[in-house]
Amino acid sequence: MSIYLHDIPLPEAQARLKQALQDAGLWRGLRIETIPLDENALGRVTAEAIWARLSSPHYHASAMDGFAVRAASTNGALPSQPITLQIGPGAQYVDTGDPLPGWANAVIPIENVESLNEHGDITAAIREPFAIRLRASVAPWGHVRPLGEDIVATQLVLPAGRVLKPADLGAIAAAGHERVRVARKPRVAILPTGTELVPIGGHLQAGDILEYNSLVLAAQIKSMGGEPTRYPITKDEFDLICERVQQAAQAHDLVLLNAGSSAGAEDFSARVVEKLGQLLVHGVAVRPGHPVILGMIHRNVENGTPDPSHLIPIIGVPGYPVSAALTVDIFVEPLMATWLGRRPLELPTETAILTRKIVSPAGDDDYLRVAVGKVGDKLLAAPLSRGAGVITSLVQADGLALIPRGAQGMEAGEKVQVRLYRSRSEIERTIFCIGSHDLTLDLMSQFLAEHDRRLASANVGSQGGLIALRRGEAHLAGSHLLNPETGEYNISYVRQYLPNIPVRVVALVGRDQGLMVRRGNPKGVKGLEDLARPEVQFVNRQRGAGTRVLLDYHLNRMSIQPERIAGYSQEEYTHLGVAAAVASGRADCGMGIAAAAQALDLEFIPLFQERYDLVIPKPFAEDALLAPLFEVLTDRRFREAVAQLPGYDVSVMGIVVLED
Amino acid sequence: MSIYLHDIPLPEAQARLKQALQDAGLWRGLRIETIPLDENALGRVTAEAIWARLSSPHYHASAMDGFAVRAASTNGALPSQPITLQIGPGAQYVDTGDPLPGWANAVIPIENVESLNEHGDITAAIREPFAIRLRASVAPWGHVRPLGEDIVATQLVLPAGRVLKPADLGAIAAAGHERVRVARKPRVAILPTGTELVPIGGHLQAGDILEYNSLVLAAQIKSMGGEPTRYPITKDEFDLICERVQQAAQAHDLVLLNAGSSAGAEDFSARVVEKLGQLLVHGVAVRPGHPVILGMIHRNVENGTPDPSHLIPIIGVPGYPVSAALTVDIFVEPLMATWLGRRPLELPTETAILTRKIVSPAGDDDYLRVAVGKVGDKLLAAPLSRGAGVITSLVQADGLALIPRGAQGMEAGEKVQVRLYRSRSEIERTIFCIGSHDLTLDLMSQFLAEHDRRLASANVGSQGGLIALRRGEAHLAGSHLLNPETGEYNISYVRQYLPNIPVRVVALVGRDQGLMVRRGNPKGVKGLEDLARPEVQFVNRQRGAGTRVLLDYHLNRMSIQPERIAGYSQEEYTHLGVAAAVASGRADCGMGIAAAAQALDLEFIPLFQERYDLVIPKPFAEDALLAPLFEVLTDRRFREAVAQLPGYDVSVMGIVVLED
Repeated sequence: MSIYLHDIPLPEAQARLKQALQDAGLWRGLRIETIPLDENALGRVTAEAIWARLSSPHYHASAMDGFAVRAASTNGALPSQPITLQIGPGAQYVDTGDPLPGWANAVIPIENVESLNEHGDITAAIREPFAIRLRASVAPWGHVRPLGEDIVATQLVLPAGRVLKPADLGAIAAAGHERVRVARKPRVAILPTGTELVPIGGHLQAGDILEYNSLVLAAQIKSMGGEPTRYPITKDEFDLICERVQQAAQAHDLVLLNAGSSAGAEDFSARVVEKLGQLLVHGVAVRPGHPVILGMIHRNVENGTPDPSHLIPIIGVPGYPVSAALTVDIFVEPLMATWLGRRPLELPTETAILTRKIVSPAGDDDYLRVAVGKVGDKLLAAPLSRGAGVITSLVQADGLALIPRGAQGMEAGEKVQVRLYRSRSEIERTIFCIGSHDLTLDLMSQFLAEHDRRLASANVGSQGGLIALRRGEAHLAGSHLLNPETGEYNISYVRQYLPNIPVRVVALVGRDQGLMVRRGNPKGVKGLEDLARPEVQFVNRQRGAGTRVLLDYHLNRMSIQPERIAGYSQEEYTHLGVAAAVASGRADCGMGIAAAAQALDLEFIPLFQERYDLVIPKPFAEDALLAPLFEVLTDRRFREAVAQLPGYDVSVMGIVVLED
Repeated sequence: MSIYLHDIPLPEAQARLKQALQDAGLWRGLRIETIPLDENALGRVTAEAIWARLSSPHYHASAMDGFAVRAASTNGALPSQPITLQIGPGAQYVDTGDPLPGWANAVIPIENVESLNEHGDITAAIREPFAIRLRASVAPWGHVRPLGEDIVATQLVLPAGRVLKPADLGAIAAAGHERVRVARKPRVAILPTGTELVPIGGHLQAGDILEYNSLVLAAQIKSMGGEPTRYPITKDEFDLICERVQQAAQAHDLVLLNAGSSAGAEDFSARVVEKLGQLLVHGVAVRPGHPVILGMIHRNVENGTPDPSHLIPIIGVPGYPVSAALTVDIFVEPLMATWLGRRPLELPTETAILTRKIVSPAGDDDYLRVAVGKVGDKLLAAPLSRGAGVITSLVQADGLALIPRGAQGMEAGEKVQVRLYRSRSEIERTIFCIGSHDLTLDLMSQFLAEHDRRLASANVGSQGGLIALRRGEAHLAGSHLLNPETGEYNISYVRQYLPNIPVRVVALVGRDQGLMVRRGNPKGVKGLEDLARPEVQFVNRQRGAGTRVLLDYHLNRMSIQPERIAGYSQEEYTHLGVAAAVASGRADCGMGIAAAAQALDLEFIPLFQERYDLVIPKPFAEDALLAPLFEVLTDRRFREAVAQLPGYDVSVMGIVVLED
């Protein structure tokens, strides 16, 4: 067993898989199937070019309700010099779609003729033919849909490899087909493995991992045009996994073996592939997702004898959800495209400016989930969480930026290619908010959607937000920076970070900070003074955090020495981390916001209110893009929704704190 | 009964429908339904915001295989100054995903430690704990996925109105849900009406129309997220239509009544809507598709009594297939978006240059199907057939250009907004061919697809193609222009139309022109000399057509006076038109290409071969974009495929006729 994976470059890994598939005769379209031409053919891929059996129209058809004539018989008709035609062979009423009589080669629309029956009523002239008068000539084939105007029998209707759209189905029907030959859907088996896995809806204990990768992978396969099969969870037992992989291989075109692809003690995937066939690649220099396994396994094992003539590909998909999804995009989508005979799916690509420095191993192709917004005339890409376990980074991403192999990361301000998940016009309706995150922004985002605006927010902390504004890289920033000398919020920081930029600062909410304790408050903690009691174990936030600044400000005002607090030096990095330390009993209390306490079912003792403001450079504050934001701030429903969040005060909402 | 529709402007029509829906309480999301969280949830629309029930991870988890430690215990470790930690409470092996012991706040990856058991084997150290040595410190929370890193219980996971993507399903699962609340799919009834309609696969006689609109409409509804029901064809009988509409209204949210929406004698739709409810709009100033009907009808008719409190919308969809599809895009898609609570579907829009003049009624919003290509740095939009009956214009369209109400058409060279059906990068891989069309271009298009190129062709005739090249509006043009003085092809025209533009002219094929006669050749026609026989009835092409030029050239060489040919002045406008005249018996023979004869099962007497060349300006001939085209010309498979078309000669293929 090798402990360390040997990562090979992505193009080499892709080439090895392609070569193995070519050798096995599998790098080509799958078998063709003939399906009825109905709405279920939508999205299927034509397996062959489709040629017309019929012409459409299949006869010279009148394009209007009117009178079929010979064009020559109308020559010379003028407003002042009408021509009269007798109804009969030479002028005959036709409805739209009626075949032209053999002697006719044009149609005069009904609204362009005068009736010459005794009532002067054109409707009657249709039924009681006598004569018509016209005051303009008609060109040969005027108002006629000639035979084959749309489709000529024998012509190409659709090429092979077309992903069928609604109008395509009509054209195939018009060309005389009632069935269509399409590529069979590739069948993909998805096998989640792991003793620690619990199915969706199952009860979770520490160390248990919810198994939802198979769901995401199945949905990816489906959206690529394949037919996924989700297998139940298999425990980390080598023989069990081998057995299930062999079973899946019989009826599928591809097996995705999820997790166990790394090199830990219970990572069996590589051994499974080696036992059942050939391991091609173990480890690819791509991030996230490097512990990928590519291989070919034998199908149709009879009497334990593998059949070397029936190979199918197997991919060991890494366990972290972002890695798993990316692996499928990178390795499976090209395979699906080949098997279906369609073009690979393709996202529009734009050049954007990176908002912060990114460090990346030089050897890796590094895929970065980014929020994208247009601020002024700059298209910006703000990196989201890089954690391979953070599936919400995929959910929130507006695009995927590639930091290619060879680059040791990128500097803030550098240009980066972004594959966009959203349309350009959607991005141009996006309000780009970078700074400290707050729950109310999530609510605001929902209300802005009613006004055809989207709020993209990236959390870089309050000071990071002000720096982004200075660089012209955000429309607004959320900020809750306390000045420990004055007890005032944000203003002095705005002056310091944005000295020459006129801004509007608007209060959004007052937010309670307080102490979290376990239900029942066993140590009877009521305020900061209790932290100095020797039996009370505290857990702190890290230096620099807004909550730590607030705590130190009040300890100082109350003349409580930090040294007297047990656990003052025990630091957590998030509100939730503090809550978790209290919930687990490692500490008796910690400071944070009410929502964190609620999330872990702790009691919350509100102590102080901090103000959370929106800082908006003047040009953006006055721009039509942001106008709906100010409307939302005065929307009663929004205020009510925010007021229902625990620990929020909306009385300050919308107050302009500073206007340059 | 009013004969003439009164077309109202599109925004007014949309506003009337919206108002009627608002009055009926139907301009809002449909009922919510709760569905299991599986891959079938893909593409459904969230009906409510989704909040997290669980945090993810729900505990502090090791992000690596390695040793859980307290970060402080590693302080001061340096390459030259290792620190040793005893395995036990203070250093404990953890797999990726394992919960951190309560006392730990960091993980040291296994590859960063040295084992201190007697074998010096790190794998054994996991099982036979003794001590580990490390030569670098670890930061607090290093290699740990803290509780809530991905999702914090109570946080917003997804907003309402989200069209679910694969990763979204994972995030919903991670947040502790096993079901998801989505908007019910709107149920749409599609009723084709018309006595002349024949279902797909049925036998067609002149005047019969193949009914495939219901298929296209159903596929459109499906792709918008709705649930279509296709009804069988109803004959043009007022009572029958009323009955079926009432029946459909009971179980659907919307009724689409196809055809019968115009003002002809058998156009009942408006009367049906008036009888069953309220007619809101009859005729909209939009092209194609103006005879649209919008109305509201009563549901739940008991004892013949309509229930005015249960209204549903009905749309009378015009009968021409392009009009029908556009009507659904314009009127139904916004309704579906409202009912599903999602954003309206939206195509990316680009500014392109119109390649030819378009006349348009000033009062109409005119939707133009266009081929789109990038030639040099110009994005060009070449209008395709404007016929409302030409469904292939929708199939071939790369985008939809809007000539807005108020403009009386547009000049060639004017800028036009185009909604693109294809990605920008696909358009940048497009070879834009404007000129005379030939069947071999369809085949070439298929072979180019293998080289990642797309061929977009617009048929404007040979001379039109040369003019497009002069304007820099095409990469190449197909041309078969005979010089009647010299009998030579294309060269003199290239010199005349492109005097200062260096070009490469490459022969594509020799193409047979000849006489088409009915099977058995009843008049025994063998050559042009037979046309002068009095019993032979001829049908001609229009003046200016290439085939006419060729005929006149040879008649002149053979000294046959046109006056001696019966039917010389009887003109058709297409190869197919000539073939149809012969097939129907109106004429005994006509001149054209073999494919037209084959399409209508006629005999073909080859007489002359004309040369069809590709004219390519030098800069494009040498560009990487077109390189695959020259490869295709030498591809044996391509030559064989062309040679199998009737009347084609590939011996000249690829010969450079002119190189400036």
